[in-house]
Amino acid sequence: MNAGVYVIGIGPGHLEGMTAEAVHILQQCTHIVGYTTYIRLLQKNFPHAVYFTTPMTREIERCQQAVQWAREGKRVALISGGDAGLYGMAGLVYEVSAGYEEVEIHVIAGVTAAMAGAALLGAPLVNDTCFISLSDALTPWNTIAHRLHCAASGDFVIVLYNPTSKRRRNYVQKACRIIQAYRSPATPVGVAQYIGREGEKTRLLTLKELAQLELNMISTVFIGNSHTRIIRGHMVTSRGYAIQEKEK
Amino acid sequence: MNAGVYVIGIGPGHLEGMTAEAVHILQQCTHIVGYTTYIRLLQKNFPHAVYFTTPMTREIERCQQAVQWAREGKRVALISGGDAGLYGMAGLVYEVSAGYEEVEIHVIAGVTAAMAGAALLGAPLVNDTCFISLSDALTPWNTIAHRLHCAASGDFVIVLYNPTSKRRRNYVQKACRIIQAYRSPATPVGVAQYIGREGEKTRLLTLKELAQLELNMISTVFIGNSHTRIIRGHMVTSRGYAIQEKEK
Repeated sequence: MNAGVYVIGIGPGHLEGMTAEAVHILQQCTHIVGYTTYIRLLQKNFPHAVYFTTPMTREIERCQQAVQWAREGKRVALISGGDAGLYGMAGLVYEVSAGYEEVEIHVIAGVTAAMAGAALLGAPLVNDTCFISLSDALTPWNTIAHRLHCAASGDFVIVLYNPTSKRRRNYVQKACRIIQAYRSPATPVGVAQYIGREGEKTRLLTLKELAQLELNMISTVFIGNSHTRIIRGHMVTSRGYAIQEKEK
Repeated sequence: MNAGVYVIGIGPGHLEGMTAEAVHILQQCTHIVGYTTYIRLLQKNFPHAVYFTTPMTREIERCQQAVQWAREGKRVALISGGDAGLYGMAGLVYEVSAGYEEVEIHVIAGVTAAMAGAALLGAPLVNDTCFISLSDALTPWNTIAHRLHCAASGDFVIVLYNPTSKRRRNYVQKACRIIQAYRSPATPVGVAQYIGREGEKTRLLTLKELAQLELNMISTVFIGNSHTRIIRGHMVTSRGYAIQEKEK
């Protein structure tokens, strides 16, 4: 395995949810860089490595350290929660490493929160889906609001990432107000929290109820489309197969 | 492990791309059901099981067999390519099993083609993204076209699943015509083919070039948004971090 930066999606956070490829590469990396909370989840399984951790919002620093170590000839794992590519660190490390063409970058895909949460809720993503982050730290709210309009108008299933934060307590409510202009108040909604971690929990509710709900930061929100129903206590978006009743 | 149907996303198809959880459950299932091509990819690793395979378009039959075996007390793996939930078999098995509440269903998430392909191309999905299937076998073209308009207008990165088939040779061109009304012809586009399998290949092009391209069926297409650039020969969507040049 060459020196370089291996950007690894660790999935929901438990070792069982990682791909074998990710585990094998982590075993061979001598240096591991990541957000403090994620590193705490995996450090005990990879005790051999030198670690560099920073808290939230210091992503650029982490990428810089990873690139720096790679330039020194190390095999460096840069950890992302979920998938490294979906709202993950993969983009930033390409940006930070521009100018250091000699640094190899490899992205190792993982199971993102939308997939892991969907599996717990049932099968909400079986039809066309949008992922929208409600964080306006890097995207202006006007852009987010326009995307919510577009996604709702297009009858996409909508997965909300970063739905809330201390500073953004009412953003899910703002999003609901937009979506309610297009969808029935009875539209099924699923919320998954602490996916794959201690305290994992899901709940099913309606779009109308979501507008009243207090969420925590570690939540992923799934808003059904016009084909989403509750079947056997699970949230399922129909793809449109005609199931012949008599054959069931 | 209980009797029931375990709907398992096997990722791109090689064992290294599966989660440890998926592998462990497959080892414990006595019966495995799946699309012929996917079963061919994994059968040698799980020789202990009884198999039931059908070719494409016979998804309902597969689900019915899985539910039937589960009703007889078997532990059954129902295989999906990529992730079991994203355009996968998870939805259909809930629909087919309605009325058999005694049959346990568990969905095991996997790495979908969008994540695996994105990892090969660079980091195209670091901002808000839509997944759209161009197959009109179960969704009317008018709905698909409206979704393409919405996704393009919302400046989402767009991932096209099922972009083409023998019967739908010009559908990518139809999609491009819609998207070009909103996006520059120079917009970066990535195509990933045979992800994780023999013949794996990627190419970068522009939206204008995509409209001329002949694709094969085993392709996933990534259309950038206004923040997508080519960095170091890879397709990267910026999330908007302000990287201070002097600190790099």
